[in-house]
Amino acid sequence: MITVYGLKASGNCYKLQLLLELLGRRYRWVDVDSANGETRTPEFLAKNPNGKVPLLELDDGRVLAESNAILCWLGEGTPFVPVDAWRRAQMLQWMFFEQYSHEPYIAVARFICRWLAADHPRRAELPRLRERGAQALAVMDQHLRERDFFVDGGCSLADIALFAYTHVAADGGFDLDAYPAVSAWLARVRATPGFVAMDGPEDSRGG
Amino acid sequence: MITVYGLKASGNCYKLQLLLELLGRRYRWVDVDSANGETRTPEFLAKNPNGKVPLLELDDGRVLAESNAILCWLGEGTPFVPVDAWRRAQMLQWMFFEQYSHEPYIAVARFICRWLAADHPRRAELPRLRERGAQALAVMDQHLRERDFFVDGGCSLADIALFAYTHVAADGGFDLDAYPAVSAWLARVRATPGFVAMDGPEDSRGG
Repeated sequence: MITVYGLKASGNCYKLQLLLELLGRRYRWVDVDSANGETRTPEFLAKNPNGKVPLLELDDGRVLAESNAILCWLGEGTPFVPVDAWRRAQMLQWMFFEQYSHEPYIAVARFICRWLAADHPRRAELPRLRERGAQALAVMDQHLRERDFFVDGGCSLADIALFAYTHVAADGGFDLDAYPAVSAWLARVRATPGFVAMDGPEDSRGG
Repeated sequence: MITVYGLKASGNCYKLQLLLELLGRRYRWVDVDSANGETRTPEFLAKNPNGKVPLLELDDGRVLAESNAILCWLGEGTPFVPVDAWRRAQMLQWMFFEQYSHEPYIAVARFICRWLAADHPRRAELPRLRERGAQALAVMDQHLRERDFFVDGGCSLADIALFAYTHVAADGGFDLDAYPAVSAWLARVRATPGFVAMDGPEDSRGG
């Protein structure tokens, strides 16, 4: 059986939980909390020298890092990966967008607001994070005005990747009411059979 | 014929030039310089609402953004994409690593040092960028100590993606001599038949 190392309250880790539940796949989950330094231990660094979760481990000990690469590995051959090559390219486009133009702002703003003390110096980063995160949400909203999901043909890995931190963007101070097409899309993802909600910070040891 | 919009002195754009030359493919290149605001014009935003280069355009007007998604589209079915599913997953792992843990530090340090004035306030970001970029180079060096390329089986899209900004890391103040396995790998990529060097900032309108 596959093993996932990570914290379910982290959007990058939750992506994998969500896909695995949507697929009805069995898996083992091992809590590893980066906020408590558990990704920097010698044992964990031996598995992932980049010191990040999530990490996927196969029965034979092979490991794979990077949440969106793991989604691609788990999703191959399932309805969450389009068969058409152009649609697959568009799916990857939105997954790279998520890691470059979305997560570094929306997830980091949430981390600062929910995990760090109210007087933490990193709060100074929030105005810039909110400006850039709002740009990402605006790009998504424009795209979704004419589509049900990011790629034509139904819910794909791009939706799972982008749902993870978008649906908790309010935790970082973003107002999702300003993005009605995004809000409607969030509801469509939630309505996908097998959907599971994300743990809150208070459900985790990282809280 | 396909069209690429971008600036060859930008690593993210050069990736596409390098792959297309390695493949011996014909293409049209249209210079678009983000440093001069050319990615924020109404005309360009109509093609890519995220306002970034590179951008690929097909003959029929379809467009694809995100350098590494474009690499995947162009590379499908060529020797630069492994047939084995696990190797493909590892290739994607390193491509997501490049966009999340490498480019935001190594490329941004280079941009600040080569494109901005010597007294620009963004120089204050350099210590943090160099610390994080050095971490990425150390992870790469460790991985390459036992391998010729990032994924077993030869030069893949992961090598092309990571070569783009690694080989000019010195522009941002990184000392590549500290990473001998990375330096040896750079030489192997340069020796790949069809290799073309990247334009320097002085070759471009952005210089």
